[in-house]
Amino acid sequence: MTLNWNGLLAPRMAGMTASEIRELLKLIEQPDIISFAGGIPDPDLFPREDIAAAYDRVLRGNSMAAAALQYSISEGYLPLREWIGARMAVGPEEILITSGSQQGLDFLGKLLLAPGDAVAVTMPTYLGALQAFSPYQPRYLAVPMDEHGIRTDLLGEVLAQGPKFLYLVPDFQNPNGITMSLERRIEVLELCRRHGVPVIEDGAYSELRYDGEHLPSLLALDDRTDGGIVLHAGTFSKTIVPALRVGWVTGPKSIVSRLVLMKQAADLHSSTINQMVIHALAESTFDAHVARLRPAYRERRDALLAALDEHFPADARWTRPEGGMFVWVELPEGMDGTALLERAIREARVAFVPGAAFYPDRSGKNTIRLSFSVNRPDRIREGIRRLGALISEAGRIAA
Amino acid sequence: MTLNWNGLLAPRMAGMTASEIRELLKLIEQPDIISFAGGIPDPDLFPREDIAAAYDRVLRGNSMAAAALQYSISEGYLPLREWIGARMAVGPEEILITSGSQQGLDFLGKLLLAPGDAVAVTMPTYLGALQAFSPYQPRYLAVPMDEHGIRTDLLGEVLAQGPKFLYLVPDFQNPNGITMSLERRIEVLELCRRHGVPVIEDGAYSELRYDGEHLPSLLALDDRTDGGIVLHAGTFSKTIVPALRVGWVTGPKSIVSRLVLMKQAADLHSSTINQMVIHALAESTFDAHVARLRPAYRERRDALLAALDEHFPADARWTRPEGGMFVWVELPEGMDGTALLERAIREARVAFVPGAAFYPDRSGKNTIRLSFSVNRPDRIREGIRRLGALISEAGRIAA
Repeated sequence: MTLNWNGLLAPRMAGMTASEIRELLKLIEQPDIISFAGGIPDPDLFPREDIAAAYDRVLRGNSMAAAALQYSISEGYLPLREWIGARMAVGPEEILITSGSQQGLDFLGKLLLAPGDAVAVTMPTYLGALQAFSPYQPRYLAVPMDEHGIRTDLLGEVLAQGPKFLYLVPDFQNPNGITMSLERRIEVLELCRRHGVPVIEDGAYSELRYDGEHLPSLLALDDRTDGGIVLHAGTFSKTIVPALRVGWVTGPKSIVSRLVLMKQAADLHSSTINQMVIHALAESTFDAHVARLRPAYRERRDALLAALDEHFPADARWTRPEGGMFVWVELPEGMDGTALLERAIREARVAFVPGAAFYPDRSGKNTIRLSFSVNRPDRIREGIRRLGALISEAGRIAA
Repeated sequence: MTLNWNGLLAPRMAGMTASEIRELLKLIEQPDIISFAGGIPDPDLFPREDIAAAYDRVLRGNSMAAAALQYSISEGYLPLREWIGARMAVGPEEILITSGSQQGLDFLGKLLLAPGDAVAVTMPTYLGALQAFSPYQPRYLAVPMDEHGIRTDLLGEVLAQGPKFLYLVPDFQNPNGITMSLERRIEVLELCRRHGVPVIEDGAYSELRYDGEHLPSLLALDDRTDGGIVLHAGTFSKTIVPALRVGWVTGPKSIVSRLVLMKQAADLHSSTINQMVIHALAESTFDAHVARLRPAYRERRDALLAALDEHFPADARWTRPEGGMFVWVELPEGMDGTALLERAIREARVAFVPGAAFYPDRSGKNTIRLSFSVNRPDRIREGIRRLGALISEAGRIAA
């Protein structure tokens, strides 16, 4: 008898479908395509020699090698938790090391969500967060944004509907590059506390600021004398490298201790040796390395914004991010991002991510996300020139 | 207002409690304790220099370094999937690389289980599997074992109750060291196919056979012309090292493609560089290295069995495993494993895992698990001498 696999699958599997972003990543492999798609760091900026030297020291020094290759505690490598804790002003027992911030988001969904629970998110929001939460079968309450971040004038009525949490990317948000103002941060915390709703803060891009002043995280602004209401997910993927898969979650100790049990059940612990190597780099070169990343990415952002000014039609609009990796474009009215992508790949050899992927209800069809992180300025200019020509032409035909 | 975190937690969190094994691992740190607790490989047997050389080659060779440190596809590193596939006679598209086999078990629970679904397991079974499945809120149907593995004469009536899957560790099972006979394997497949129940086969220890003939896995015995009914979880944790967190799941392509989406949502992918390093070791030294592990662990198993024969009372019974890392002891009647552990740590400076942890219903209270993998023979003999004296004394007092 052939097994009826479909009949055996858990209900949560019904909503699990392939991500546009991940499928598009495959396009980057074709060298003649100029890709603004993946939100990935530039490998030419990786501290490769420092990483190679760190693996060597950990494995060929007698004091750490055995531990580096052995099972280790689910909480994560203590010196790394101490380093993160010192920077975030939390204790090491308030930190769980995760396999990237993506695993932190998965665990927080698993911690809080039962089928039918509500989750509050911005419109748009990070696609990977929707993918992490959706297996736990929530419904989404979407809150509009403006140039200062989430619309706090509309947030209260959403929070009154009792979501299990509010998910936010306050700094240089993926996908739209918007940074939440200090006033909004304070308002969000007040509103969430009043309604008894925790905040999941995704700080993936926070270190990558190119202009303006650093703003304190929601975690830092929260009153933590009672443990606080913020769960913060961080990562070394954008500051050191993604492939070692080292991130963290921090929050109230009582919650982190539950996440430690979850980690144990899910994959025992993150790679011991990779945690040690990340710690070695964090201690020795983190600030200097990030200081080298910022001007490199700033130059690319500036090239992208200048090229948009020059080549995109007047009826398109876009954000001017102070950091991160993304610019968000509203296409001329009536133009569809997904249809444009198909033509852009075929006719202009340019790729990006259609914006609808970042809306839980798949609205936002006339938006696209452009990443400026992997291409050099001249390639950015050439790609935007080609894409701008295509959009202008498509606009003329539609008109 | 202080947040009511407990009121916000998902129902699945109610059953998530700390594992005896993981808590006990902390005891290994105290050098005067002889620990038979953790099921961990001996770090003195790690191929440390080969691993250091592989990291060096990957990071300092120009062809792989950028890819090694970058995001990569959720499926896993193709050459590694090809290597595993060639050994298991499956295609690379039938394999997902996971962060250890523990993550494979978590994903299979997430794939198949809704609250209240039944899962069939042996009594006893691997504690980590219970921990991986339990967040998906199943109920357990437990099937007794004998020296040939799961009792197939009792399995049919359990399968008739419609479990979502049957979880088995056919080779040198954790915790009791029992290996399922070939006849039983064939019977299990026939019964499961008849009842439409898939099998999750955990092959964590399969390479570590010290006597007797290799038996084909359930995956290898299954008729896979229709995709098959077996999902197999494997790992390099026991053969190369645990800390790189590289394992895999293999099964029908249609199921593996869903697990790939789950991996993407859960943590994007396993560490790229670690997958490349494991592949380098698999290609170059896997068979030779495992051939060195076997006599080392065989000697320890033999030392443990000889010491048990010499020092344990006649009314205790234990298994004689053909491989793996564990011997299972039934204590004299009425003796409690957990109570014995407390005395053993305090009075004999010996640790092990009480058997009740391996029963979903916490029965099996007069059993204990002894791991022989980390201690040299003389330390094994000394630990068993001390523990045997304690058991004999406790038995005399009870009598």
